[in-house]
Amino acid sequence: MVYIQRRETFSASHRLYNSSWTEEKNFNVFGKCSNKRGHGHNFQLIVTVKGIVNPETGFVMNLADLKNIIVNNIIDHVDHMNLNEDVPFLKEIIPSTENLAIVFWEVLSPLINNQGANLHCIRIIETENNSVEYFGK
Amino acid sequence: MVYIQRRETFSASHRLYNSSWTEEKNFNVFGKCSNKRGHGHNFQLIVTVKGIVNPETGFVMNLADLKNIIVNNIIDHVDHMNLNEDVPFLKEIIPSTENLAIVFWEVLSPLINNQGANLHCIRIIETENNSVEYFGK
Amino acid sequence: MVYIQRRETFSASHRLYNSSWTEEKNFNVFGKCSNKRGHGHNFQLIVTVKGIVNPETGFVMNLADLKNIIVNNIIDHVDHMNLNEDVPFLKEIIPSTENLAIVFWEVLSPLINNQGANLHCIRIIETENNSVEYFGK
Amino acid sequence: MVYIQRRETFSASHRLYNSSWTEEKNFNVFGKCSNKRGHGHNFQLIVTVKGIVNPETGFVMNLADLKNIIVNNIIDHVDHMNLNEDVPFLKEIIPSTENLAIVFWEVLSPLINNQGANLHCIRIIETENNSVEYFGK
Amino acid sequence: MVYIQRRETFSASHRLYNSSWTEEKNFNVFGKCSNKRGHGHNFQLIVTVKGIVNPETGFVMNLADLKNIIVNNIIDHVDHMNLNEDVPFLKEIIPSTENLAIVFWEVLSPLINNQGANLHCIRIIETENNSVEYFGK
Amino acid sequence: MVYIQRRETFSASHRLYNSSWTEEKNFNVFGKCSNKRGHGHNFQLIVTVKGIVNPETGFVMNLADLKNIIVNNIIDHVDHMNLNEDVPFLKEIIPSTENLAIVFWEVLSPLINNQGANLHCIRIIETENNSVEYFGK
Repeated sequence: MVYIQRRETFSASHRLYNSSWTEEKNFNVFGKCSNKRGHGHNFQLIVTVKGIVNPETGFVMNLADLKNIIVNNIIDHVDHMNLNEDVPFLKEIIPSTENLAIVFWEVLSPLINNQGANLHCIRIIETENNSVEYFGK
Repeated sequence: MVYIQRRETFSASHRLYNSSWTEEKNFNVFGKCSNKRGHGHNFQLIVTVKGIVNPETGFVMNLADLKNIIVNNIIDHVDHMNLNEDVPFLKEIIPSTENLAIVFWEVLSPLINNQGANLHCIRIIETENNSVEYFGK
Repeated sequence: MVYIQRRETFSASHRLYNSSWTEEKNFNVFGKCSNKRGHGHNFQLIVTVKGIVNPETGFVMNLADLKNIIVNNIIDHVDHMNLNEDVPFLKEIIPSTENLAIVFWEVLSPLINNQGANLHCIRIIETENNSVEYFGK
Repeated sequence: MVYIQRRETFSASHRLYNSSWTEEKNFNVFGKCSNKRGHGHNFQLIVTVKGIVNPETGFVMNLADLKNIIVNNIIDHVDHMNLNEDVPFLKEIIPSTENLAIVFWEVLSPLINNQGANLHCIRIIETENNSVEYFGK
Repeated sequence: MVYIQRRETFSASHRLYNSSWTEEKNFNVFGKCSNKRGHGHNFQLIVTVKGIVNPETGFVMNLADLKNIIVNNIIDHVDHMNLNEDVPFLKEIIPSTENLAIVFWEVLSPLINNQGANLHCIRIIETENNSVEYFGK
Repeated sequence: MVYIQRRETFSASHRLYNSSWTEEKNFNVFGKCSNKRGHGHNFQLIVTVKGIVNPETGFVMNLADLKNIIVNNIIDHVDHMNLNEDVPFLKEIIPSTENLAIVFWEVLSPLINNQGANLHCIRIIETENNSVEYFGK
């Protein structure tokens, strides 16, 4: 079993806000992250896939295919977007980094598992100090 | 003459948009960066100050003072903000990285020149691939 | 179960030295790291916490709280200090990076577990080439 | 149980090519990576070793010894080399990053296990976007 | 006058070798870099352009245009190539990083100067420890 | 004229302290940096040399020679040392990063100018946020 990792990046804005709370409670919990007009980040998305090495290619999975799956299904939908309003598959959630990781797992897992390998981890780096990992359960 | 550099970071959203143009022209020039609801970045701001080394301290300028000047006058006003709408000193401009560098120079230059040193360069890193420098003229 | 990571940094000096050994044996085992007057590093401390995502906030744990726990209980005690002499909770040990990781775990684990989440890993990066991880057992 | 990591770097060229295939099939699978005269990378090799902390030294294993094992047995054989042709222990394989990780494990594992610690992971970073991990089974 | 920077990356192999010298003299001067079958790097190319900020766009030059000029005229010709043999515009030179910087300047300078801005600097980072800058004279 | 850069790293401790001042004035000016037992950093030293490219080698100066000059004359004297007490050529100064840059220039400049090239800049990175540059006048 070998683990391969592919990194892609996207820039997006978001706002942390629970619409069932008052403005004041939102500010108490989320601080500056609840700013009404949003703020943004350069996010890094790191996808880890595990599998057996194919002796004909030396690959767990062709990285060009993995890149295309990530770009077509995630990056093209979130890059230079507002994560609260522009992305259909994020509509029902608070776009915290934790929730992004869970939703990206749900989008990518069936597509990668189709390739004879398995999604192992979604890591999202929000800033140089903050990141999140999700292993699917 | 010795040059010292201090780095601070901020996360913000912006939209590149010229209000005297049509939506279509904005999209042709600015592409995804003109997305209506904004997108965002983790910006790095690197301020270079030049001066003579004070023999009593070994310093061009106390970095704690430089940090306070940058944080109080720039970072606290732009971090977790929407650069098009939330920041009074950015109100009249398109918040491109070039324009941010020029405005930050205008804010910081008199404050630093008060300290017996001189502002030399404002550098802003927008993404790992894109950055801007301004030397004040 | 989602894993969140917070990075903080500190600068400190230390000396690797076993007081029950001769100077010569210390030099043979620890090399330049046993230099009598100490040497120093910019350390990075990366704390990983695991837990369930709270549906009201989208958070495993508020990163502002996690930051405060790390800064108040570790960083404020070790930053710009001599790890052999200035830090009460490091008094009885050789301040190798391995031992720092174990002691920091003991300090942080009960404080984080009070927050409804669990400490998962202490990682300390000593230089760009050397780092240590401890998972608590 | 504590985990320590040592990073070393090497620059090398390789070509991804299956000699039992036509040129055309090689290009379809490996793309530009099959270019006849090779291409190259600055690889980072990160070796993780796990063990108990020795109370006399505070070390899982002396990092100077770990560095020497890695440099003498891997780096000196691959740095500034062509991985398809210059390295005896890579002769029979396609030098994909996956296969490098598996072979480096086989070389290093018995040498490290001799030191009273155990090899835990071989990580190879090929570019800032692509990396591989192998845990030995 | 504002300076903008765009970074692109490429992976390539090269060999430092003066064909008018003996093998032995080549090894004495170039060391492992003269290895017959080549070795390789992940190069970073950083292009700095200077100009006036256009008040209609806030740009010195559209970064999308700058990216296209660099990718079409440099990256597509050198990425995953052998710099000694595969690249017509490098044919007559020893592909040291210094010479790459000079040749890339000659390729890019007229194309960028066509855009109403001016090429200011070519920087090439060969490894995390080695880099080169060229300002065109 | 081409500029080449070589990076080397060292770990050291220092204390910012003016012996003609009281403890209290030292603390007011230098803060935690005046801690009696010192603190430390992983410093990066980046040396920029300028010169003409030698057509026989493609080099401004052999990087192996530049590395040896830096390591033998600076790194071996400061790595894993206390900069206030262990380094003869730093004895008379406050070891601020500014003063380190000036002294390192004085040490390296004549040695590099002997090689048919010229020292252009000493850059010292003290932490990821603080650095200093000196151009020799």
